[in-house]
Amino acid sequence: MWCQSCREEYEERDAGTCKECYEEASETEEELKREIDDLKSKVAFLRLVSPLDLISTTDLLLHAAGSSSNANPNSSPSTALPCTPAVPAHRAVLISRSPVFKAMLENEMEESRSGIIKIYDVSYDVLRSFVSYLYTAEVLLDEHMACELLILAEKYQVKHLKIFCEKFMTSKVNNENAIGNYAFAHRHNAKQLLEAALSLIMDNMATLTEREEYKELVEKDPRLVVEIYESYLTRQVNTAAKDSTLQP
Amino acid sequence: MWCQSCREEYEERDAGTCKECYEEASETEEELKREIDDLKSKVAFLRLVSPLDLISTTDLLLHAAGSSSNANPNSSPSTALPCTPAVPAHRAVLISRSPVFKAMLENEMEESRSGIIKIYDVSYDVLRSFVSYLYTAEVLLDEHMACELLILAEKYQVKHLKIFCEKFMTSKVNNENAIGNYAFAHRHNAKQLLEAALSLIMDNMATLTEREEYKELVEKDPRLVVEIYESYLTRQVNTAAKDSTLQP
Repeated sequence: MWCQSCREEYEERDAGTCKECYEEASETEEELKREIDDLKSKVAFLRLVSPLDLISTTDLLLHAAGSSSNANPNSSPSTALPCTPAVPAHRAVLISRSPVFKAMLENEMEESRSGIIKIYDVSYDVLRSFVSYLYTAEVLLDEHMACELLILAEKYQVKHLKIFCEKFMTSKVNNENAIGNYAFAHRHNAKQLLEAALSLIMDNMATLTEREEYKELVEKDPRLVVEIYESYLTRQVNTAAKDSTLQP
Repeated sequence: MWCQSCREEYEERDAGTCKECYEEASETEEELKREIDDLKSKVAFLRLVSPLDLISTTDLLLHAAGSSSNANPNSSPSTALPCTPAVPAHRAVLISRSPVFKAMLENEMEESRSGIIKIYDVSYDVLRSFVSYLYTAEVLLDEHMACELLILAEKYQVKHLKIFCEKFMTSKVNNENAIGNYAFAHRHNAKQLLEAALSLIMDNMATLTEREEYKELVEKDPRLVVEIYESYLTRQVNTAAKDSTLQP
């Protein structure tokens, strides 16, 4: 018997599909690829030019305003704004992308009147990437940037960016950073990242208590450590129950 | 032998793929579907809120200004603008979507200074749909709307909209409208529509000369009629050549 796809001979027991289903699957694949091409061209069409290239039409300035709780050491005492350049943007775009900006800019708030928005606890680079993402749905991530952007995305309820960062961070979880990521995911309601990190932690319970980050977590947030142990216990109980049903 | 896909029994000669290729194809399908979901959510993210819901932030007004060659019968003699309401929009969006608007608004042209753009030869409804498409990449088409929007898309070089309208019109070509679509496609450089219409015209050459639209086209643009005959002749010659090589 010959496979219509790879053209190799195979034994009867290694048969996959009948001819009809093979042809149908090929057609489906073609259709899906066409849909992908359509969607890609739609994304390209809907992307906006960066606000830096539209500067004469912008009606907002965003400032990376340092820490929200402490005075920014870089800012001069006479002004509340820091020394980094502002990131220009359009009200229309920010309103379209974030319900938080929408509420801020559609009501008579200080930011709406002045056209100046201070974004606390971020660097200029992160703010620029954040705004750029709102225009293009694109950003080059590393682990630090993903972390910072996820926090901003959560704060301004930009769901699409949050999911994007969370996926990236989940793909980077390893034994070294699992505890840190677990605590981070907890603080920022990142469920997918939380599960990936927790699963990896539980796979390495034998060495857990030796880790530096573990000791830090016990100090800073023992409740989270308790949750790790609770999950581990639940898994052990479930595995034991499963094993006992499998026994003859 | 049993098909792994439809679970039905089949004969050896009706075999499609081996098991390995079947599994690979299933995985590919899953991956493509995931990519489609990702792209769909990107499209949803990149869509802008309609300018009608962002009216306080708009910095342009577009007017459906009737015919460009004749005076608009609806406009009062004292003003160049018609009585229909204006469509608000954002410079940033129009610049992002159309190189023609970009040139108009980034240079010191009258439209850029006044913030008023007159769009000639369109109705208010068409203009509103056009602007809405620039924000959302969505529009509800019928044959008239597709025709009007294709013309606007060509004029303002909004390629994505032109392709969208052309696809729709191509799907609606039939014996009744083939000649009209052929002439339209010629005027507006719509190659896919032109080929579909021409192919249908050539399939029905026996009744071509009886048609009212044919007689009109001979009157208005005989060069196009010549091109139909030339294409028909080329096809006949090719078919004859093919038949002769097939003969023993």
